[in-house]
Amino acid sequence: MGFRNVEEAMISSGEESESVKEIALFAGLLSGCIVIGHLLEKTRWLNQSITALLIGLGTGCLILLTSGGTNSRILEFNQEFFFIYLLPPIIFNAGFQVKKKQFFRNFTTITSFGVIGTLISFAIISFGTSRLFPMLDIGYLEIKDYLALGAIFSATDSVCTLQVLHQEETPLLYSLVFGEGVVNDATSVVLFNAITNFDLSDMNLHIGLKFAWNFFTLFILSTFLGVFVGLLCAFIIRTLYFGRHSTDREIALLMLMAYLSYITAEMLNLSGILTVFFCGIVMSHYAWHNVTHRSQVTTKHTFATMSYIAEVFIFLYVGMDSLDVEKWSFINGSPEKSIWVSLILLVLIMVGRAAFILPLSFLSNLSRRETAEKVGIKQQFTVWWAGLMRGAVSVALAYKKFTGSGKTVQPANALLITSTISVVLFSTVVFGLLTKPLIRWLLPQSDESEPSSPTSSRLPLLGNKHEPGNDDPEAETEGGHRTLTTKPSLVMLLNSPTNTVHHYWRKFDDKFMRPVFGGSGSVSNATGTRDMGMIH
Amino acid sequence: MGFRNVEEAMISSGEESESVKEIALFAGLLSGCIVIGHLLEKTRWLNQSITALLIGLGTGCLILLTSGGTNSRILEFNQEFFFIYLLPPIIFNAGFQVKKKQFFRNFTTITSFGVIGTLISFAIISFGTSRLFPMLDIGYLEIKDYLALGAIFSATDSVCTLQVLHQEETPLLYSLVFGEGVVNDATSVVLFNAITNFDLSDMNLHIGLKFAWNFFTLFILSTFLGVFVGLLCAFIIRTLYFGRHSTDREIALLMLMAYLSYITAEMLNLSGILTVFFCGIVMSHYAWHNVTHRSQVTTKHTFATMSYIAEVFIFLYVGMDSLDVEKWSFINGSPEKSIWVSLILLVLIMVGRAAFILPLSFLSNLSRRETAEKVGIKQQFTVWWAGLMRGAVSVALAYKKFTGSGKTVQPANALLITSTISVVLFSTVVFGLLTKPLIRWLLPQSDESEPSSPTSSRLPLLGNKHEPGNDDPEAETEGGHRTLTTKPSLVMLLNSPTNTVHHYWRKFDDKFMRPVFGGSGSVSNATGTRDMGMIH
Repeated sequence: MGFRNVEEAMISSGEESESVKEIALFAGLLSGCIVIGHLLEKTRWLNQSITALLIGLGTGCLILLTSGGTNSRILEFNQEFFFIYLLPPIIFNAGFQVKKKQFFRNFTTITSFGVIGTLISFAIISFGTSRLFPMLDIGYLEIKDYLALGAIFSATDSVCTLQVLHQEETPLLYSLVFGEGVVNDATSVVLFNAITNFDLSDMNLHIGLKFAWNFFTLFILSTFLGVFVGLLCAFIIRTLYFGRHSTDREIALLMLMAYLSYITAEMLNLSGILTVFFCGIVMSHYAWHNVTHRSQVTTKHTFATMSYIAEVFIFLYVGMDSLDVEKWSFINGSPEKSIWVSLILLVLIMVGRAAFILPLSFLSNLSRRETAEKVGIKQQFTVWWAGLMRGAVSVALAYKKFTGSGKTVQPANALLITSTISVVLFSTVVFGLLTKPLIRWLLPQSDESEPSSPTSSRLPLLGNKHEPGNDDPEAETEGGHRTLTTKPSLVMLLNSPTNTVHHYWRKFDDKFMRPVFGGSGSVSNATGTRDMGMIH
Repeated sequence: MGFRNVEEAMISSGEESESVKEIALFAGLLSGCIVIGHLLEKTRWLNQSITALLIGLGTGCLILLTSGGTNSRILEFNQEFFFIYLLPPIIFNAGFQVKKKQFFRNFTTITSFGVIGTLISFAIISFGTSRLFPMLDIGYLEIKDYLALGAIFSATDSVCTLQVLHQEETPLLYSLVFGEGVVNDATSVVLFNAITNFDLSDMNLHIGLKFAWNFFTLFILSTFLGVFVGLLCAFIIRTLYFGRHSTDREIALLMLMAYLSYITAEMLNLSGILTVFFCGIVMSHYAWHNVTHRSQVTTKHTFATMSYIAEVFIFLYVGMDSLDVEKWSFINGSPEKSIWVSLILLVLIMVGRAAFILPLSFLSNLSRRETAEKVGIKQQFTVWWAGLMRGAVSVALAYKKFTGSGKTVQPANALLITSTISVVLFSTVVFGLLTKPLIRWLLPQSDESEPSSPTSSRLPLLGNKHEPGNDDPEAETEGGHRTLTTKPSLVMLLNSPTNTVHHYWRKFDDKFMRPVFGGSGSVSNATGTRDMGMIH
């Protein structure tokens, strides 16, 4: 939205005090969610997402009662708002906070899960719905709609599982779940956009190939743009030596350029999600090391907080929105249809995930020599479970596809919206509630059941490479890198091909990238002197 | 704006990619401003505001050329947007970062400048314009319009001067300029709202008294609300011991509750500016000390950065908007009228400020015993100069008053808008450019010309009261407080009545407030233990 639009909206809506009231109520609810989420932190079942959903549901009920059953929401969801303001901080933060070492160590497995897995899942859900839905007599759906359904329900939401896993205890599992979640988000949105922007009315090999090519170039160009903006930001801050003058300016520049990468990608019809994710990775690898210590602490936590607020916002809204009378009124006559549709979707989601996790894990295990590094059956189950939840991305995509700018018109579309909400609610609440107990039972005292990866045994070596007093969140990762700079032997190449690739990347990084763009090692002197001035 | 409105706007505007383009361009310009502002930091003349204004003007010219002279802006200014999203972070940050000791030491002088001074300035500008404008034949204006003009042009923008003064070198002067700026912002907005919401068609004593009472209650209630929300936030964080669980949650709660205070005040038709300013003061005095060290650093810089971005945003916009063809077309026939109006306003602004600074400084000096503490003639001149610039608040108020939702309809209104923009441009650019050289010339090596206040001589004593390793930006101030807890003698009472009031406040604070709401002293144990876990 531009301000021009907002302004028009102001004129059209007439009364400004109305919107102030809405914003006030929403800000109050958000604060409430945070406090209650904190109070329930220690419980065995709940987590922040579920709390926000339940508070949303509760508020929806209240509004429904006070408005005499006509309205359940404070604000109406706008998928543009979601994609322009709420999603970017979440995805950027994911890229910014990802433990890059683990991520790139398991890069092959993660991308195979995130890309190939999502495509398999997409194919199964699309095919399944296109076969099963016609039996239910829910109204006519095009082939495009089924494909869109596949994309919508391949978008997982693994936040819930991540809150239970511990990065230190189970690094491999954590990076698999986290990495898959991010790549999956990107893949499903890219897939969804490719589907909606593409004429798929008569499918043939030529169109299929063109579609695949389109998908591929979108992927590459988006990644490239993100890397470019990240490097540009690092270069600017390094060259102009920002920290000398103003901490606030550095922070502002990091934030604005991160957002700029996203919005530029959207403007160019690329995938903003992929762009901002890679921009986050590059920024945390280069730009973040060029700023003052104050800026490092601030950006780290600000990005995390913005992402956190955006997530709570979304779940709060989904909870409130799920009681929207208008949507439910369409399926008043046939509630059993909605239940059947939701059930079919849930089963397809489960089957779709199982269909790629087992074979892909098997393949991934073939390339891992050490038993300790293999993805065991318990880990496979955890990854499978982590991806069962459906969340904000699914809801936003469903709104984008099945509502004419916020209003649900056709009965079939209304049915798909309510079913999406049902699937999201059910999976988040029921599967979500089961997650903590299940994972605790599956991986009791997880540090025993999950064999520590070779990285952690190397950790004691890192002390020397550490800049003193540099309480850098990346220190572990970057320090880990350092140990690899010893000459690679043939044995090492045979034993760990990934590590060897990593070794050459490190060499390239140290020789060409860091001198230009900065990074943990290269600017230690600059950071050191700049850190003298403490927080003022 | 609510999302409902945005959504309607989406429907009405039809094309979403348009707004994405606008946002991308604006984000790019903002980043550009920051980088260029940094490069020009060292120059003798320019500052961030002027840079943003000039970049805005430049971009406006470019758009004007490319659009063939029909449009100069990317976005259209919406005063709602300004008051709901841009102003709160600026004012909150002002309250949050203010050196409370200095602020409350000079509280009487600051409030007399900020409230009484603004009222005098308002009266002179209103009276002057109501006498002089009818001579220019610019069209009919009501008495309410003249009063509104008075309020619009009493709102100063002292950012420029503050960038030149140094808090350490000239603490008294800095706190006067800063304090006056903030209280002035609040007063003029409260005054403006009181004027526009009040029927002043036939003025008499009864209505005058009612108006004064209205103004007074608005002031008190707004302040009270801000203090209440700040204390509530401190109480929640202290009681629930947030830091134990999540840094992000603390930061999110601080941000949301700060914003909540503003938006609640707006909802209740109070002055959000006053509320959020006092909320900022209370939060930095209590709540800020209850959170982890990480959260302290992050909130401090995040608030500053948000305020910074909002300021640059505003100046960038004002620069772009000042080339709006539509507005200038109204005064095409009589450009000399616009020049005269602007000139009259500039002269009245100068006279209005002089009219209160001289007498109020004289009164203030009467109560100050030590010559070192007195406000000298050079200081008075600096305070006078600091308030000559007009900025975003003036523009926003002028838009609110003289445009029917963004469109300038009447010729007289269009003239006043263009004159406001001219005054803002002229004062910011010309006075702004002169500020640095002028103050350097007036206060050469400022630490000599401005006698250091008694506080600074006490500073060496503070070491003992300091928590080790607590590199707290408030340490100086809070430490300064501590030294006052020695018993006050009669001499002390006679010599420095303000300090004595301060002493009793400190006693009250220590005995009743800190045990409940936390603060720098009371939570040293909690902060100490919590700081053990470094940034992760």
